[in-house]
Amino acid sequence: MAATAEQINATIDAYVAAFSAGDRGGYLALWAPDATVEDPVGSDVAVGADGIAAFWDGVRALASDIELQRTGDARVAAGEAALPLRAITAIGDMTLSVDIIDVMAFDDEGRITSLRAFWDPANMAPYEG
Amino acid sequence: MAATAEQINATIDAYVAAFSAGDRGGYLALWAPDATVEDPVGSDVAVGADGIAAFWDGVRALASDIELQRTGDARVAAGEAALPLRAITAIGDMTLSVDIIDVMAFDDEGRITSLRAFWDPANMAPYEG
Repeated sequence: MAATAEQINATIDAYVAAFSAGDRGGYLALWAPDATVEDPVGSDVAVGADGIAAFWDGVRALASDIELQRTGDARVAAGEAALPLRAITAIGDMTLSVDIIDVMAFDDEGRITSLRAFWDPANMAPYEG
Repeated sequence: MAATAEQINATIDAYVAAFSAGDRGGYLALWAPDATVEDPVGSDVAVGADGIAAFWDGVRALASDIELQRTGDARVAAGEAALPLRAITAIGDMTLSVDIIDVMAFDDEGRITSLRAFWDPANMAPYEG
């Protein structure tokens, strides 16, 4: 049985909340074993609990505060989902935002098995609230 | 060289225009050889020119008029893109809409090499223009 839309949306909400709160443990609890993260698309793929923990630490070293906002409905199909997000982050003295689409796959317990994040660092722009 | 964001957005605009105009030839000209279409995600994958032509004909047999609207920016990364769309279609006496996210990959000439369309037929709703 593929994860249901309800399971998938609950996991996405938990993902956005943990990411925005800087909740490393909550974030790392969301993944299936051997899950993969490619963020942004085209970068090296992080694999498994250790790889995803290292990815988290690397992101947080660049930007300790990151707020994720869901900017539209997740489109769910066959245990996968694509969803629009905005990330708002403080880097140095600047507050920047960028629009993202995350593509995620889920196991039958609703854990994330893969994440591919579509965004372009060149599109980061001053945040205008 | 991966396709540029400009190439990718031009192909997406041509895709939306051809789809909305019912322009079968224009639509079929947008694909690389051996391209794949999975629409919606989880359905059988159409492969190559003949497969994609059969996919087009099958869709048009269900709904002769389909308007696609881009509802946000394409997020482009490493020769791929994810973009939000709305499809508006007349089926019988009803006008229905559904929100979609298309994930596309492109060759270095900007032709589409794969398309995965995230949407759920259960989310089709009366169009409220």
